Amino acid sequence: MPPSHHFSDEERRGVYRAIYERRDVRSQFLPDPVPDEVLGRILEAAHHAPSVGFMQPWDFLVIRDASMRQAIYRNFECASRQAAEAYHGEQRKLYDSLKLAGILDAPVNLCVTCDPERPKGSGLGRRTDPAVALYSTACAVQNLWLAARAESLGVGWVSILDFEPLKAALGIPPALTLVAYLCVGYVSEFRPQPELEEKGWETRSNLASVVHFGRWGFHEAERRDGPPPEEKKAAEE
Amino acid sequence: MPPSHHFSDEERRGVYRAIYERRDVRSQFLPDPVPDEVLGRILEAAHHAPSVGFMQPWDFLVIRDASMRQAIYRNFECASRQAAEAYHGEQRKLYDSLKLAGILDAPVNLCVTCDPERPKGSGLGRRTDPAVALYSTACAVQNLWLAARAESLGVGWVSILDFEPLKAALGIPPALTLVAYLCVGYVSEFRPQPELEEKGWETRSNLASVVHFGRWGFHEAERRDGPPPEEKKAAEE
Repeated sequence: MPPSHHFSDEERRGVYRAIYERRDVRSQFLPDPVPDEVLGRILEAAHHAPSVGFMQPWDFLVIRDASMRQAIYRNFECASRQAAEAYHGEQRKLYDSLKLAGILDAPVNLCVTCDPERPKGSGLGRRTDPAVALYSTACAVQNLWLAARAESLGVGWVSILDFEPLKAALGIPPALTLVAYLCVGYVSEFRPQPELEEKGWETRSNLASVVHFGRWGFHEAERRDGPPPEEKKAAEE
Repeated sequence: MPPSHHFSDEERRGVYRAIYERRDVRSQFLPDPVPDEVLGRILEAAHHAPSVGFMQPWDFLVIRDASMRQAIYRNFECASRQAAEAYHGEQRKLYDSLKLAGILDAPVNLCVTCDPERPKGSGLGRRTDPAVALYSTACAVQNLWLAARAESLGVGWVSILDFEPLKAALGIPPALTLVAYLCVGYVSEFRPQPELEEKGWETRSNLASVVHFGRWGFHEAERRDGPPPEEKKAAEE
């Protein structure tokens, strides 16, 4: 008999815990070093993400050097000041009060890139939508994020950066896309809610409002009764 | 004392099992129905993905209707025939032998979209790179994929589709981006290797070849010794 492909209850609980207790961490990083073997495990997890045509379009750049992180933090500060100009009044006050990056606090920063022209995979599945290489790379980020949560490591994704000078400073080839800049480290706590929800920036939408059945706009209540959606739609017109 | 934020060994093993035993399933789907509550759990997992500015830009369209899946399968067949023309000789034979979609076999198909202009999040973090909304949506796909693995459900991502007629058939508003078309169902087995690796289409790259330390191109062996990467680079020039 082959081993079961089913998960134990506790293994399954681990997966859902990682998904529900994962946070975009900005404020709770501890300076404790991240051991090489733990960093290796979360990178290996990222490397086992799905990729279109088994293309594996990602690279991971590990940044620990404090002076480099200082330079990247200045890049972030400048980009964030420019972004702040879009907000006014109470929303501007709230924006200014948010901590949006743990670049200096987290001992490890990670740059995740995508090579959209990587020959691996021989183009399989990329003809109809070249963006799938980028999506594969985002899946690698999510694998890393969930593995990190299981290792009690916090991760924060910083998108408020001026990417071209950042790529140049890190020596990233111009043809690559910088998909994610991540801050990684141990944390004092994982907050019970996302920080942007806790601080009143945004609320979580109801799942039912974003799930459609059979055809766009047919939400849960309509799904069981009446004719199939296609006929229903035709009947409406 | 607050409850520990650490995972038990078995919970952590569950996370890594999901990551390492997840497969892009095309060939092993069973016709067994997916209960609503299980589908609800994997969709809720997707909905708890990270999103830029807590934007939650995704929608999920559940397709069970056999005639709709037939129509989408014809779309896939046509796109796949066109894609096949890029391959010749042995590679073409291999391409033709691959099963690339389980649209008809999997009882549930899911369309995952991204609304790049969704007002939620008030644009936070999107000024510097509008693609982050798409990346958030890809992270939602990966959450769903891993939760599905923990539920013993297989998922296959089909990118070989002509997206515009597909969106029209499903009533998806033109301004939205169709990020992923997924086939979901119980499976006879999860193969030990990715199908594209098993069939000889592509090999997995070595993690060390895609990890850089301090600066692009500095791989593991160079990371511990010598001056910091910045000086090292300057010294090289």
